[in-house]
Amino acid sequence: MGSSVADLPHPFDPLSLAEIETAITTVKKAHGDVFFNVVALHEPRKAEMTAWLAAPETAPRPKRVADLAVIAPGGKVYDALVTLDEPKIIKWELLDGEQPIITMEELQLVEHIVRSDPKVIEQCILSGVPEGEMEKVFCDPWTIGYDERYGSSVRLQQAFMYYRPNIDDCQYTFPLDFCPIYAADKKEIIAIDIPKVRRPLSKAPPINYHPAAVEAQGGHRKDLTPINVTQPEGVSFQVKGREIEWQNWKFHIGFSYREGIVLNNITFNDKGNVRPIFFRLSLAEMVVPYGNPEHPHQRKHALDQGEYGAGYMANSLSLGCDCKGSIHYLDAHFPTQAGGVRTIKNAICIHEEDSGILFKHTDFRDDSVIVTRGRKLIVQQIFTAANYEYVVAWVFHQDGTIQPEIKLTGILNTYAMDPEEDTHGWGTQVYPGVNAHNHQHLFCLRIDPNVDGPDNTVFMTDAVPSEAPVGSPENFYGNGFYAKRTKLATTGEAMTQYNGATSRTWDICNTSKLHPYSKKPSSYKLVSREVPGLLPKEGSLVWKRAAFARHAVHVTKYRDDQLWPAGRHVPQTSGEPSKGITEWIGDGSESVDNTDIVLWHTFGLTHFPAPEDFPIMPAEPMTLLLRPRHFFASNPVMDVPPSYSSTPSQLLANGSGVLDAADKISKLAFPNGNGANGASCCSTNGATNGN
Amino acid sequence: MGSSVADLPHPFDPLSLAEIETAITTVKKAHGDVFFNVVALHEPRKAEMTAWLAAPETAPRPKRVADLAVIAPGGKVYDALVTLDEPKIIKWELLDGEQPIITMEELQLVEHIVRSDPKVIEQCILSGVPEGEMEKVFCDPWTIGYDERYGSSVRLQQAFMYYRPNIDDCQYTFPLDFCPIYAADKKEIIAIDIPKVRRPLSKAPPINYHPAAVEAQGGHRKDLTPINVTQPEGVSFQVKGREIEWQNWKFHIGFSYREGIVLNNITFNDKGNVRPIFFRLSLAEMVVPYGNPEHPHQRKHALDQGEYGAGYMANSLSLGCDCKGSIHYLDAHFPTQAGGVRTIKNAICIHEEDSGILFKHTDFRDDSVIVTRGRKLIVQQIFTAANYEYVVAWVFHQDGTIQPEIKLTGILNTYAMDPEEDTHGWGTQVYPGVNAHNHQHLFCLRIDPNVDGPDNTVFMTDAVPSEAPVGSPENFYGNGFYAKRTKLATTGEAMTQYNGATSRTWDICNTSKLHPYSKKPSSYKLVSREVPGLLPKEGSLVWKRAAFARHAVHVTKYRDDQLWPAGRHVPQTSGEPSKGITEWIGDGSESVDNTDIVLWHTFGLTHFPAPEDFPIMPAEPMTLLLRPRHFFASNPVMDVPPSYSSTPSQLLANGSGVLDAADKISKLAFPNGNGANGASCCSTNGATNGN
Repeated sequence: MGSSVADLPHPFDPLSLAEIETAITTVKKAHGDVFFNVVALHEPRKAEMTAWLAAPETAPRPKRVADLAVIAPGGKVYDALVTLDEPKIIKWELLDGEQPIITMEELQLVEHIVRSDPKVIEQCILSGVPEGEMEKVFCDPWTIGYDERYGSSVRLQQAFMYYRPNIDDCQYTFPLDFCPIYAADKKEIIAIDIPKVRRPLSKAPPINYHPAAVEAQGGHRKDLTPINVTQPEGVSFQVKGREIEWQNWKFHIGFSYREGIVLNNITFNDKGNVRPIFFRLSLAEMVVPYGNPEHPHQRKHALDQGEYGAGYMANSLSLGCDCKGSIHYLDAHFPTQAGGVRTIKNAICIHEEDSGILFKHTDFRDDSVIVTRGRKLIVQQIFTAANYEYVVAWVFHQDGTIQPEIKLTGILNTYAMDPEEDTHGWGTQVYPGVNAHNHQHLFCLRIDPNVDGPDNTVFMTDAVPSEAPVGSPENFYGNGFYAKRTKLATTGEAMTQYNGATSRTWDICNTSKLHPYSKKPSSYKLVSREVPGLLPKEGSLVWKRAAFARHAVHVTKYRDDQLWPAGRHVPQTSGEPSKGITEWIGDGSESVDNTDIVLWHTFGLTHFPAPEDFPIMPAEPMTLLLRPRHFFASNPVMDVPPSYSSTPSQLLANGSGVLDAADKISKLAFPNGNGANGASCCSTNGATNGN
Repeated sequence: MGSSVADLPHPFDPLSLAEIETAITTVKKAHGDVFFNVVALHEPRKAEMTAWLAAPETAPRPKRVADLAVIAPGGKVYDALVTLDEPKIIKWELLDGEQPIITMEELQLVEHIVRSDPKVIEQCILSGVPEGEMEKVFCDPWTIGYDERYGSSVRLQQAFMYYRPNIDDCQYTFPLDFCPIYAADKKEIIAIDIPKVRRPLSKAPPINYHPAAVEAQGGHRKDLTPINVTQPEGVSFQVKGREIEWQNWKFHIGFSYREGIVLNNITFNDKGNVRPIFFRLSLAEMVVPYGNPEHPHQRKHALDQGEYGAGYMANSLSLGCDCKGSIHYLDAHFPTQAGGVRTIKNAICIHEEDSGILFKHTDFRDDSVIVTRGRKLIVQQIFTAANYEYVVAWVFHQDGTIQPEIKLTGILNTYAMDPEEDTHGWGTQVYPGVNAHNHQHLFCLRIDPNVDGPDNTVFMTDAVPSEAPVGSPENFYGNGFYAKRTKLATTGEAMTQYNGATSRTWDICNTSKLHPYSKKPSSYKLVSREVPGLLPKEGSLVWKRAAFARHAVHVTKYRDDQLWPAGRHVPQTSGEPSKGITEWIGDGSESVDNTDIVLWHTFGLTHFPAPEDFPIMPAEPMTLLLRPRHFFASNPVMDVPPSYSSTPSQLLANGSGVLDAADKISKLAFPNGNGANGASCCSTNGATNGN
């Protein structure tokens, strides 16, 4: 294959289908049939990559390397690296007591084994499942997380058990109260956790959201008219391969089996000066601890990305359903465990949306006015983690703001309860016989900043009153307040919590580049308000395993391969010692002042379920902002064309020269009257004086 | 005029143009020429109104009454009530030391007087304004707020002074350093506040955002293609007068000179059962304290609604500029100070938007899936408070959530500085010679709840870990956590602060109505995360005048006319004693347990300006949620038609019966390839296994 440079993958591109096949073939040739849990891009070393990005014509192009985790017969786990230009295994390392990510195939398999296990069948019948109805029994086979009785060396899954009276019923309405434990290597159930107090199968009627069920309840509502979104002249973004350009932004869109969307080399063209902002952005890990302390519910604390993968669990998205308007899609390729390749079509969708008023001002003297509408670019994926769905959107604004946004929907994880049972506050009966346990969704945003260059420093900013008392000369009327800035100079100092009372933010600064007017460092501010903190206590199993969630912010010095803060292999880690971020932080003495750093931000929400969330949850959104502060000379969006503009001089000249570029497609809802006024454009502030 | 009942205004309707005229004529007849600062609806007494709403055919219809505040010659201020059916003054009360709201006419006048005042001219010249250029001098004439040197009995304004080199320049780029004080009764400047350290007029070049200025800087960007939003079959809402029905919601949209949009009698049709939720919702007051403690900046703490009025300052909105799509508008009528009537056309806009995924779930076993898109209804206004604009939107969601949303845009309030001067952290040099002081925007949301009836109770909810230590039998693994609920039984107990660490929320509950499954009271949860608290200190001037901002939440017992928490007449209140909410709370002993209550919530943000905010601010959003919890039996939106649905049985039958109602208008961004896949609908989760 005579390939030109244009044909070569971008060094940040995920492995292509062919590259995955090459890596698999190479390993198979050397080691025979193994299970391929990971075959993914081994990300280019930053030093090499930075050199190449600076001079792609002259610097050496970073080599393509595959990163693998495989399970060989006998449950032996290997980490491997395979070069792809000349296929060659350059690393083959046997691991001890580590379990790689669980695959979709491993999730699929357990249900079949559970259904034919005699002890499970016995428990089902005891719970009230009619004999011979095991095909109506379902399970969500999570990794076991960690159970001190079994440790980490045997690959285990815990099977949350459910029953469906009818094939189209929602099984989460009929949870069973016991939990089989499955050993992957033997493909068998090795134990069943049975609670002291038994809870028989619910006899409540099914509750469903599918059309036939809704029809039986009176049908769908008929009073929604369509809203159409069109871009007759095409979209405002350009895509080359996986690089996108839009409204001065440029970045590369990767996709990782772990993190899903990975954004690399994010730059902003500031009037011809292409300025780096972030080297890499992703959701690097998450944990969903459940708050019921009774055994074995402590094992319910999915680290969904490390244990299952936001890429592996990605939905295939579709036009007019998941996204509306003019959409561009990107596919994803992953290995199958057996050594094939599967493709998720449309794993990422990209589109623009109108985002309301970008800026407006009216001068009250003369009603001279400007009004400009904004636009946003959305790079989105959805992944299904058994019961829950996560809609993850990276929203780019014209003004330099990046807004990660997550919507939660899907179905609550449920447990059986006697309808008269006291939940003791650890959960809510959301439907008769259905106990939805309290839980948190905590996400770790990994920010590898590059704010005007790689050497950055994080400051914590708190809004605080003047220290001087009311009546003192310095603060006589008591109104003084200011932004108190604290430099986070070491990894230890940088372990910081959220403070809602001071509207705490964290500023990622380039202290070598001061703003000409404000004299403050060029920076991006992390504004995040949904920061509940980890509710499981210090020393708890979750606290040990998900150390990234102990603080709202950690800062580490950048090192290659330090991507995932709960460690590379997450299933069945004990947290003793904690993997990932605690190892990188060490004794906390390392300087993160004016050097290449990574900021890890844990945010999310605490969910005390209510019946409104069942049987399927209306989407609950959460968001945060990365905002440029002292980065641009002035407002960077003044050149966005206004919809309407009139200046004092134009108004004096009887409106000549007034700009009226308003969208002429918009219409009155009730053009034939009904109280609506003919809405001519904003030529005046509307005050028609009667006297 | 033989009027049928259908012609009568709804008792919640703002005064019509004719009603305002009737009230003015009646007062003029009795008292001659006075200034009409307020001629507004005297809101119906709640007892009468509730009786009428329950039985509009038989109960007496609440009478129309006008509420007036007038200024008679000599600066005498009167509160008055005028019945409108038979025009008659039923109250005429002389006030002592109270100043009614400032009108647009009063704001307009000062600039002219300032320009011809010899002492002001002298100061302008001293500052560097060329002689004979007083027509280039501008001022924003705020109410003085409060200044202890002058007290409350003389009506005063403080004039923030600016210069425009050219008629179309933004004057906020050229602030002057002194502040004339204007007496309204005499129409003259009575003093000038001159700082000890003088700051000459800036010589920096102007920076502008109007098209000619942008053209001179290289022009507007040309790479934005249009996004069109259309509703070819019309909108999904119905409007009768000012009552709107949409997606089971029904409510009345009022408009007050003070609060702007007022939403009354909000109900939700829950499967045929029309359930009351809120009797009245509005933004009742706000305060914008500035954090520079130097005299006279302590006077910069606009209580914009009480001092100027979110209704009085409303913009006239226009199609395709302020709003996009299919829009319905409502006008507003207000008195002029001289006794006329002015109309703000299109003061309120109402429209629908697609709101992304409402719910989705895919079963990972078989890729059976449902995906349903959501819709929202937006009732919006924009008001211009001198330099700033506030975009206030009341967003209704199909799932019973109400989401007040505020966007800030417009221009920073600025003060003069020497470019080399140290701002001492009280402000930021956003442009050479321009100091933008730190400030907060604190809004008071008035919630008059009616959750399944008027008798409600507020509980504060904190997410907290189990008290039992790790290793104890009750919390062996340490993961236990729960929602700690604290009843706010009295007005004193209800004075509560925000706590970000516990994700604190407030639940408005009907304790007489327990949910059949969860056994918890029917409730609406206030979820608000932008709650910075008042930064001016206890005992400060702002703290005294804006007592509502001392706590995130206050709860009072409902009483007619207790609408505005900083008092009825806000200009020039000293805060000694504090007006409004502190009077209503009294000693804090009054019960607010299971009775008709009002919840006052103060939220907002702290703004440390940056150069990006100048010369015009890209809109900065903030929002909160009022969410139904334990209110609906189950998810209330299951009957929203899905875009796509497939059940396990349909998939087994080779997809027969699968619902594909996806929006067929959406398109691929790049239909001719460019890496995009032909996006057929979500028939599978996309995993095409290669092996």
